[in-house]
Amino acid sequence: MADTDPAAEPAALIAAISTAARVAAGVLARLPSEARRAGLRAAAAASRDAAPAILAANAEDMARGTAAGLTPALLDRLRLDAARLAGVADSVEAVAALPDPVGEAIDTRTRPNGLVLSRVRVPIGVIGIVYESRPNVTVDAAALCVMSGNAVILRGGSEAVASNRALHAAFADGLAAAGLPRDAAQLVPTTDRAAVGAMLTAAGLIDLIVPRGGKSLVARVQAEARVPVLAHLDGINHVYVDASAGFDMARSIVLDAKMRRTGICGAMETLLIDRRWPHAAPLVEALAARGCEVRGDEAIRAALPGVAAASAEDWDTEYLDAVASVAVVDGVDGALAHIAAHGSHHTDAIVAGDEVVAERFLAEVDSAIVLWNASTQFADGGEFGLGAEIGIATGRLHARGPVALEGLTTYKWLGRGTGQVRG
Amino acid sequence: MADTDPAAEPAALIAAISTAARVAAGVLARLPSEARRAGLRAAAAASRDAAPAILAANAEDMARGTAAGLTPALLDRLRLDAARLAGVADSVEAVAALPDPVGEAIDTRTRPNGLVLSRVRVPIGVIGIVYESRPNVTVDAAALCVMSGNAVILRGGSEAVASNRALHAAFADGLAAAGLPRDAAQLVPTTDRAAVGAMLTAAGLIDLIVPRGGKSLVARVQAEARVPVLAHLDGINHVYVDASAGFDMARSIVLDAKMRRTGICGAMETLLIDRRWPHAAPLVEALAARGCEVRGDEAIRAALPGVAAASAEDWDTEYLDAVASVAVVDGVDGALAHIAAHGSHHTDAIVAGDEVVAERFLAEVDSAIVLWNASTQFADGGEFGLGAEIGIATGRLHARGPVALEGLTTYKWLGRGTGQVRG
Repeated sequence: MADTDPAAEPAALIAAISTAARVAAGVLARLPSEARRAGLRAAAAASRDAAPAILAANAEDMARGTAAGLTPALLDRLRLDAARLAGVADSVEAVAALPDPVGEAIDTRTRPNGLVLSRVRVPIGVIGIVYESRPNVTVDAAALCVMSGNAVILRGGSEAVASNRALHAAFADGLAAAGLPRDAAQLVPTTDRAAVGAMLTAAGLIDLIVPRGGKSLVARVQAEARVPVLAHLDGINHVYVDASAGFDMARSIVLDAKMRRTGICGAMETLLIDRRWPHAAPLVEALAARGCEVRGDEAIRAALPGVAAASAEDWDTEYLDAVASVAVVDGVDGALAHIAAHGSHHTDAIVAGDEVVAERFLAEVDSAIVLWNASTQFADGGEFGLGAEIGIATGRLHARGPVALEGLTTYKWLGRGTGQVRG
Repeated sequence: MADTDPAAEPAALIAAISTAARVAAGVLARLPSEARRAGLRAAAAASRDAAPAILAANAEDMARGTAAGLTPALLDRLRLDAARLAGVADSVEAVAALPDPVGEAIDTRTRPNGLVLSRVRVPIGVIGIVYESRPNVTVDAAALCVMSGNAVILRGGSEAVASNRALHAAFADGLAAAGLPRDAAQLVPTTDRAAVGAMLTAAGLIDLIVPRGGKSLVARVQAEARVPVLAHLDGINHVYVDASAGFDMARSIVLDAKMRRTGICGAMETLLIDRRWPHAAPLVEALAARGCEVRGDEAIRAALPGVAAASAEDWDTEYLDAVASVAVVDGVDGALAHIAAHGSHHTDAIVAGDEVVAERFLAEVDSAIVLWNASTQFADGGEFGLGAEIGIATGRLHARGPVALEGLTTYKWLGRGTGQVRG
């Protein structure tokens, strides 16, 4: 940690932390892969060694959270135990074993004048992570940033302050033990909300902000940030079942997309069914039988009078729960129009036997991830073979979809000549 | 042009234009390359056909500019003649002949479960161009945006309003004649400065802003924008001459980097000379003999007492003129420290015979473009083999260095399965 005073004015505090981070980023960017990997392995080991202190700190947070009346779901997110802590250390080691994007040449070209140009991946620089409740983010995010050669500034929520401090101390101790700069991973030493505002407006000091948490946190970050943000606000994901779909595959994909885990951003929220498809009723019944509350449009309710009516708001709602809105649409055109009107550019899928229809859906849906005959729950960096992800982005610039190590890099152009001038 | 009322409140005007642009962008994104190419060829032809009207409009602007006392340099930038107009049409045809990045698969991977994933380049969407004086930007920028499948919103300066309208009308006529949506290229129908503010804050409506013009315009855009911006503010570019450099190559590169064209962003502004290099005096004399005003540090003035003294501000100044600051540094470490303190992350070069030193410079200078034994004036999309550029970006995200067609695209993930679920 830089020599920072938690009581300093927030902008001055963040400026001091960012300046120390920039220096550390310069050191990290010059280290070979193996040094960054060794630093992460040492950080994982330090986390294991510090388990008693981390669990004691977490018990403090849990006691304070219980007294403050946090919901059982929030308390569960906050809670660490020996198994979860071992998982955190394991995941740092997994990141240390990922392919390193830094230094990779994206393309190399020799110009007619002999100048050899290549684009080479380099770290972005200084990355700010703003997160809530789940203390493992302290370590998961730091590991991804350090592996990709970036310095990270961590700002967790007040409910996990003791856990985050203990996790961060162990992580930074591990980096330092391996000879990496301690300031490569700093924790903002105050839970003053103004410190978040100072991070979001630290243009030129912080290069990128990644929010991790609920919708209100992401919305605040997107609204206030003057620094680029990688995030998604909503995952209003659709599965469209085309007339050419078989019933068994449609049922299997729809049930998985909605019900495998209902609280993740890749879960289906709206099911669109081609009017010509004859199996709408049994598909909706299968969803209901799995415990999903269905809210249907008029056509669905005509076929299944017991289904509740979807309101206008339902089509724009991310339930993150065992609830689905279901509409009948006129073929792929109807599906495309519905998704263009109500989607959130996250993940949408088509179930279809007709390749021409499927390829049109793939081409025309304007989402970060578009799938044919697969569940939307594949929206995940690990499932994509990218390794751990720092998040999923629905913006249109820099990185889209799962953001993993490569998304935490940029590039620079290197030119090697023999005296070339433009003349 | 959408059915927009120039007298509308600026935010409403920009919202109406952006909404029409979004619709056009959807159409453009679905057109095959050949249709976009044909649209641009038709736009070039329409520009040629409309030459008399465009030149008459430009004469209006020139008369108004002359009456308003614009400088000769600004009047020259504003001026169109038959040759310049032919060049504008030719450049549209050149863009129409460039390789099309849209639809290109960046990587394709088959997951162990059989899901085939690929990242495919797609247009960004709606791009705003905010520019000054040089009316050819109307057409150059529109051509690059349309070729990359994006709709463009053009907002030129008041001094070129008649020229921009005539150029835009011909371009849009050409697109429409080829069956492309006219709203693919819209010109903001007011020179009210508040319209620029409305563009810069149109997050969600406009996906990217590219400013083209002087430093005050770029600074305003960077300060006010809530929409991502691709730009560079300064090009404070360095050439470092290492002890291992030969005199002839150093002289040739330094003279070209500084004096070939002094007003472009890739020009050298500061020359750094290794203290151990024995030819500092003749190199500085060669610059002066070519007509460059030299401002030296103490070591340079000790060797060449006639040289003016550089002030502290000189090291942070982009002259864009026949002026150079010159400092003696202690080897590559001194050069790296100077560039880290004073550079603008644009383009920096080393002249060196020692490959180890050169590779260290390439690795450690944190600029969009870093060159070894080549002139900084190669900082140009055309020279990089990318075709025409929309600008050079010194930010760290999305695209860095010359931004051409590929930099105007993003990607989405497409997944093709056979019924895969996560289960």
